[in-house]
Amino acid sequence: MTSPAKFKKDKEIIAEYDTQVKEIRAQLVEQLKCLDQQCELRVQLLQDLQDFFRKKAEIEMDYSRNLEKLAERFLAKTRSTKDQQFKKDQNVLSPVNCWNLLLNQVKRESRDHTTLSDIYLNNIIPRFVQVSEDSGRLFKKSKEVGLQLQEDLMKVLNELYTVMKTYHMYNADSISAQSKLKEAEKQEEKQIGKSVKQEDKQTPRSPDSTSNVKFEEKHVRRSSVKKIEKMKEKRQAKYTENRLKAIKARNEYLLALEATNASVFKYYIHDLSDLIDQCCDLGYHASLNRALRTFLSAELNLEQSKHEGLDAIENAVENLDANSDKQRLMEMYNNVFCPPMKFEFQPHMGDMESQLCAQQPVQSELVQRCQQLQSRLSTLKIENEEVKKTMEATLQTIQDIVTIEDFDVSDCFQYSNSMESVKSTVSETFMSKPSIAKRRANQQETEQFYFTVRNPECQGKLQKN
Amino acid sequence: MTSPAKFKKDKEIIAEYDTQVKEIRAQLVEQLKCLDQQCELRVQLLQDLQDFFRKKAEIEMDYSRNLEKLAERFLAKTRSTKDQQFKKDQNVLSPVNCWNLLLNQVKRESRDHTTLSDIYLNNIIPRFVQVSEDSGRLFKKSKEVGLQLQEDLMKVLNELYTVMKTYHMYNADSISAQSKLKEAEKQEEKQIGKSVKQEDKQTPRSPDSTSNVKFEEKHVRRSSVKKIEKMKEKRQAKYTENRLKAIKARNEYLLALEATNASVFKYYIHDLSDLIDQCCDLGYHASLNRALRTFLSAELNLEQSKHEGLDAIENAVENLDANSDKQRLMEMYNNVFCPPMKFEFQPHMGDMESQLCAQQPVQSELVQRCQQLQSRLSTLKIENEEVKKTMEATLQTIQDIVTIEDFDVSDCFQYSNSMESVKSTVSETFMSKPSIAKRRANQQETEQFYFTVRNPECQGKLQKN
Repeated sequence: MTSPAKFKKDKEIIAEYDTQVKEIRAQLVEQLKCLDQQCELRVQLLQDLQDFFRKKAEIEMDYSRNLEKLAERFLAKTRSTKDQQFKKDQNVLSPVNCWNLLLNQVKRESRDHTTLSDIYLNNIIPRFVQVSEDSGRLFKKSKEVGLQLQEDLMKVLNELYTVMKTYHMYNADSISAQSKLKEAEKQEEKQIGKSVKQEDKQTPRSPDSTSNVKFEEKHVRRSSVKKIEKMKEKRQAKYTENRLKAIKARNEYLLALEATNASVFKYYIHDLSDLIDQCCDLGYHASLNRALRTFLSAELNLEQSKHEGLDAIENAVENLDANSDKQRLMEMYNNVFCPPMKFEFQPHMGDMESQLCAQQPVQSELVQRCQQLQSRLSTLKIENEEVKKTMEATLQTIQDIVTIEDFDVSDCFQYSNSMESVKSTVSETFMSKPSIAKRRANQQETEQFYFTVRNPECQGKLQKN
Repeated sequence: MTSPAKFKKDKEIIAEYDTQVKEIRAQLVEQLKCLDQQCELRVQLLQDLQDFFRKKAEIEMDYSRNLEKLAERFLAKTRSTKDQQFKKDQNVLSPVNCWNLLLNQVKRESRDHTTLSDIYLNNIIPRFVQVSEDSGRLFKKSKEVGLQLQEDLMKVLNELYTVMKTYHMYNADSISAQSKLKEAEKQEEKQIGKSVKQEDKQTPRSPDSTSNVKFEEKHVRRSSVKKIEKMKEKRQAKYTENRLKAIKARNEYLLALEATNASVFKYYIHDLSDLIDQCCDLGYHASLNRALRTFLSAELNLEQSKHEGLDAIENAVENLDANSDKQRLMEMYNNVFCPPMKFEFQPHMGDMESQLCAQQPVQSELVQRCQQLQSRLSTLKIENEEVKKTMEATLQTIQDIVTIEDFDVSDCFQYSNSMESVKSTVSETFMSKPSIAKRRANQQETEQFYFTVRNPECQGKLQKN
């Protein structure tokens, strides 16, 4: 037999079980707390999203109004121009076209940001309100389901406790019955052993002298043995009965153990997961997805609209052309720029001769004059070629200066990680470069030179200014 | 000879020429006025552009500040959360990730609009200032050149006037000399005719009786003829001289006419064009182009930056996933969700048997119980299959409702031509559709059904609520 130290006492087993169940109960409470917390966070997040979009709708509306005002300020100005035909005429000039498109773009952006604001207020925020309502309702239901599941689980654990205690009781009864039976067996053994000894002792004596005493003794002994046997039988029956009860109780305990473990497993592995699914999903993620996709759709449409406008401006900028503007201007003011009629020869008093007279005696003089002019012309031609070359080179220099591709501001949008450095980055891009001042000086010098070369007769006058 | 009506009088010719020159002079004045006006319009346009971008820079800065405030309001809230670890934990959940990216996007847009504002103020506006300066300077120079060219042209016209008048004068002299010469010739003819008559008359007389008288008469007549001849010679010489002068004057006039027409042509066709070139171009269009391209570059960079942010949000929205959130939640609260230890068989008082005892006499009872359980199990299995099918179908219905693709708001950005209709278009998109209310009712009904099917034990309880 095992020593008492080798197996746990009933109290210990019960205490251990109690601890285990208490721990589970604490976990169950924490689980619902955790879901509560998740639900609160979700409600808070949805509230934040609503507040965020409400505030952003205000900002977009503000921005839209300011843009509208900006566009109107300048559009009103052109509208108030008395001479509408004049205004219309100017529109054909490429810089004016760019300006009009710029104002159109501002109006377009104003309109788009109003739309954005409207979508925030009348589409996105209501979605979050719905998600919030749905989440709250679902959470309430899920919590009820969860409590019910936990109640069921606790019922199973209580049942296990009961069957375990029953097993203990019946097993104790069985052990007690067994020990009583064993006691009876010992007594019987002892009684049988006594009879055998006495019979052995009596063997040297004469059988007759003590036969009467022997008979009496025998009778007493025999009834005692019978009594013991009867008791043993009784105890055997009791033990068998208790043993069966204990086995049944153990079986019940083992079956309940399996069932409990299965229930615990089902709760922790399936029910909890389903519970979180019900809390977390059933539309929460999908609805949030749709709300945010609405936001993305609005933003991307705004972007596309803005981009279309910028494309139109880019196209107009590409069509900034001095030559066609000159043509348009001259067509617009045709009466001012059209050349006058040729001066015709007016014969005096019916002078019939309207051709150059190149006969003697003026011939030789004309020939001489012609020769002089031709010689002067060839000198001028050479000079002119020189001037032309210089002018073209100078003009090219100016063109190079004014068409330098210095308009890419991508760098300004490449922020370093620190937000602080934004301002300094930007201000460096255009104005603070020392090369700009140098370039400007160079441009003006070249321009001056160009004018001097082109209009030498103005040289004196220009230099005076 | 032609009649006086057939050729213009000197006065008429001069008057016509005066009119023609006056018209040209008026055109020249108009031309400079027109350039003045163009210059003024340009200065005005450049001033408008500066004002426009200055005001827009303010608007962008305002917008940026509002966005910054918006982001900070919510970021400060998360920062103030005491439990930083808790906050960090929540970030792994996909809706929280979306929310963080949304706030990041607002911060990014705020930064970008500050940059935009800065580029307007420190790059684009200075460019317009420069263009304005350059234009002003160039216009001043061009105007001087223009005035000089016009002065030169007027000089040529005045010269033509002079040579024309000279031609008239010499031609008049020549005509007068010619008529005087013709008069002398007539007198000479008359004188010669008289002599011949007298000689014819004297023929019947004796040649001697009147010879003395005849001699005297002859002498007088001869001297008269000589006188006339001398006068004629003188007049002939005068006429020849005047005729030559007139021819030369006419030649000068014809040459001046050619030169004047060439000058007028040159001025109207080349000089005016060059003048407008100098006013209109020499960098105006090119510099305007660069300024506007800077604007476009800034806007496109802003757009790109915004788009990158939206891509990140879109990615996060795609990753909105209930299942992985559940996993993360369970990992985060591992101690709350981890299943407890299995309940082990606790042998009572060293009970050696820890297995189900299935021998007689409990065997038959166990077998009977097992059979009952198996029959119950197969009933449950069938029921369960039914429930599962219903649940899956219900869940699918809910999924269909919550994943309907109703987030495209492109329509809102397709404005009709009238700006007024914007608001009504937008408000129709989401909330005012009657189908939404119907869909919501349907969703809640299905959800209720799902809960009832899933957790029939809760049915009674749930229906009470």
